[in-house]
Amino acid sequence: MTGTNEFAADQYELIPAAEIANRIGNLQKRLADDKLDAVLITHNVSILYWTGTMQTGYLFVPAEGEPILYVRRSIERAKQEASIRTIPLGSFSRFGETLRKDYTSLFEGDTPPLIGADLDALPAATYLKLASFVAEAYGDKTLPDRGLSRLIDASPLLRRARMVKSAWEIERIERAAQALEESLAESLPELKEGVTELEWIARVEYGVRRRGHIGVMRLRGYNQEVPTGMVGSGTAAAEPTYFDGPAGGRGLGPAAPQSVSMKRFARNEPILLDLGCCIDGYVIDQTRTAVIGELSDELKEAYKSAEHIIREVEKLMVEGARCSDIYNASLKLAADHGLADHFMGFGADQVRFLGHGIGLEIDEWPVLANGFDMPLEPGMVLAVEPKFTFPGVGVVGIENSYVITAGGTPPRALTRTKEQLFVL
Amino acid sequence: MTGTNEFAADQYELIPAAEIANRIGNLQKRLADDKLDAVLITHNVSILYWTGTMQTGYLFVPAEGEPILYVRRSIERAKQEASIRTIPLGSFSRFGETLRKDYTSLFEGDTPPLIGADLDALPAATYLKLASFVAEAYGDKTLPDRGLSRLIDASPLLRRARMVKSAWEIERIERAAQALEESLAESLPELKEGVTELEWIARVEYGVRRRGHIGVMRLRGYNQEVPTGMVGSGTAAAEPTYFDGPAGGRGLGPAAPQSVSMKRFARNEPILLDLGCCIDGYVIDQTRTAVIGELSDELKEAYKSAEHIIREVEKLMVEGARCSDIYNASLKLAADHGLADHFMGFGADQVRFLGHGIGLEIDEWPVLANGFDMPLEPGMVLAVEPKFTFPGVGVVGIENSYVITAGGTPPRALTRTKEQLFVL
Repeated sequence: MTGTNEFAADQYELIPAAEIANRIGNLQKRLADDKLDAVLITHNVSILYWTGTMQTGYLFVPAEGEPILYVRRSIERAKQEASIRTIPLGSFSRFGETLRKDYTSLFEGDTPPLIGADLDALPAATYLKLASFVAEAYGDKTLPDRGLSRLIDASPLLRRARMVKSAWEIERIERAAQALEESLAESLPELKEGVTELEWIARVEYGVRRRGHIGVMRLRGYNQEVPTGMVGSGTAAAEPTYFDGPAGGRGLGPAAPQSVSMKRFARNEPILLDLGCCIDGYVIDQTRTAVIGELSDELKEAYKSAEHIIREVEKLMVEGARCSDIYNASLKLAADHGLADHFMGFGADQVRFLGHGIGLEIDEWPVLANGFDMPLEPGMVLAVEPKFTFPGVGVVGIENSYVITAGGTPPRALTRTKEQLFVL
Repeated sequence: MTGTNEFAADQYELIPAAEIANRIGNLQKRLADDKLDAVLITHNVSILYWTGTMQTGYLFVPAEGEPILYVRRSIERAKQEASIRTIPLGSFSRFGETLRKDYTSLFEGDTPPLIGADLDALPAATYLKLASFVAEAYGDKTLPDRGLSRLIDASPLLRRARMVKSAWEIERIERAAQALEESLAESLPELKEGVTELEWIARVEYGVRRRGHIGVMRLRGYNQEVPTGMVGSGTAAAEPTYFDGPAGGRGLGPAAPQSVSMKRFARNEPILLDLGCCIDGYVIDQTRTAVIGELSDELKEAYKSAEHIIREVEKLMVEGARCSDIYNASLKLAADHGLADHFMGFGADQVRFLGHGIGLEIDEWPVLANGFDMPLEPGMVLAVEPKFTFPGVGVVGIENSYVITAGGTPPRALTRTKEQLFVL
């Protein structure tokens, strides 16, 4: 007991400075390409990604020049963790003046600078203030009231910039995959007839938590939540939910209307184990199907169809392939199996994607969906989840996470759990 | 197995229609008082509170007339859970037309209606779209570009409207308090020298999860997160964090820089157990201090000071008392004990409140702080948390949750765990 109140950064592993330097360099190149003068980053996950610290504040990254992290709290910890210039935010209401002082050349030009921000996450009340500060920094507070706000949405750019993962990041996703596999292996013997979905997921969560799960699963979508995934048995897995996934689960009540319920596992029904955890900030997402007893022939066939689709999709997930093409190929495969109506949800509740990026958040880019015409690049990490929903009966399917490799070779699976129908 | 894909609302307990009717009536009165024509509610917690369902969509509540919940997904489940009129959202890009059709009289007046929204949560990108839809519904899409947006921040009004809890809500907070007490009681024997903070909180979390904890703790503050609270031993509890509370905890790494760490419990150090859980959507928040062995005289005295402050504050927490007065009284008491510098954090990291509202979120109103001059009303529920931070040594303190009662009587404690220094 030293009597100091300093946070000792050696208490845990920091994000390597080289990682941050690469990320900032990549971001600045994108800003220049998109003709943005700077970005103002406000969301904790993005601040972590581009600075190495998650302390609260604002990160300003000019297209050229030195970024600054303005910290509200805790400046002391931020300084130890961040590998970019880190200073106290000071008075928030004078943040416009601060920016003008620190980035004079940017704000003293003939036209106001065009600044992007993470408007997919930033609450509107704070956005309105920041837009007025940016205008004030340029010396014309009336810009926003004249429809001339220069603080614009850069969230697509910021999402694209995080799609390709470094080896350091992929190692962390694999740590999460390992923690989940270990917890699943020790919990599966307790998955028994009569046990509730809630009771069983509590065991899995205990397992991943002791192994370092940070206790939250981060995601970007407004009003979306993930505890650690869902465990859905029989009809409870197949009920419609608000959750933006193929199978949300019944949930515990109107205040938790997805994921596990109080339903007890029964014999001969499909049990969907769609689980994740978050280690060092990085998430894993995987799904296995289990049954106590035996599945009906129809469900066995559907599970085999999921296996077939994921094998075919693996072949397609090569460098340069277009996300939308892969999605459409999966739709065709599901139709060929006669299961188009059951694929990725049922009827009006079908979701229109096959897979999604994972990393610091569970809903990253790219998405295997129409509208995503970007080619796959080495280092992108995607969770691919062909699933079939049978209303009133249940859901079967598989979800593996993969990293895209270079040169036309198939993706490397990051999921550690054996891919099989778990017959208990 | 019935072969139906209908969600059966009898699978779990719904929010009583009378609750929703009271809440909507209260909200409409506040809208009229504040001269707002309507509110457009977008955040999942607020939608749950005012409709009974948490399915995604938008809730429009006019100051006079019938509210409508426009649902994106799942309309089927929303219709079964909500006790107000619930219809499909339809095309989002035509939401302006929809509003004009459903609320013709509101949008066909001489002046555009003034509509509030939850701009403390709504992401700016969606806000910009909704503001243009509102302008379009009035027939003048140029309003926002002329600085005449009629979609304004109503978050203070919406927060005030949720401050007073019904008996039904308080019962749910008490259920959460009971689940936490049971889990704590079964976990305390495992709080031993050499066990890590992480390992021990995992046990507590397992206990509350099996008892119905929904797996997330909701809070409003942007970039704020709470797993289920924090367990902080010795110096790890006293380190500065970004978290907006008196003691955040060291955390597991830069990506989880608060709450538990890998530190092992040691003898004769204070161990702060600041824990919560969420049952039926309602949270409890409580803190106890424990020690394996014995605290130093200085820390024992500080703990007694926390006891004294909470006893005095209980006497002050009566109907009609001003929140800011109670906060300032606590500052004076801490100073009288000679502990002003240690109260509610240390030095630059002190937070400027003594307690906060709890309910569906952990950071509700009112707050026992300056700037909150509102009088306490019966039914308000507050977590009060006098704590003392000793840098390099640890944190001691107490947190109880109370409901304000009528007629000058002291508040009723909702916390179930015995208030004592737990000597293990």
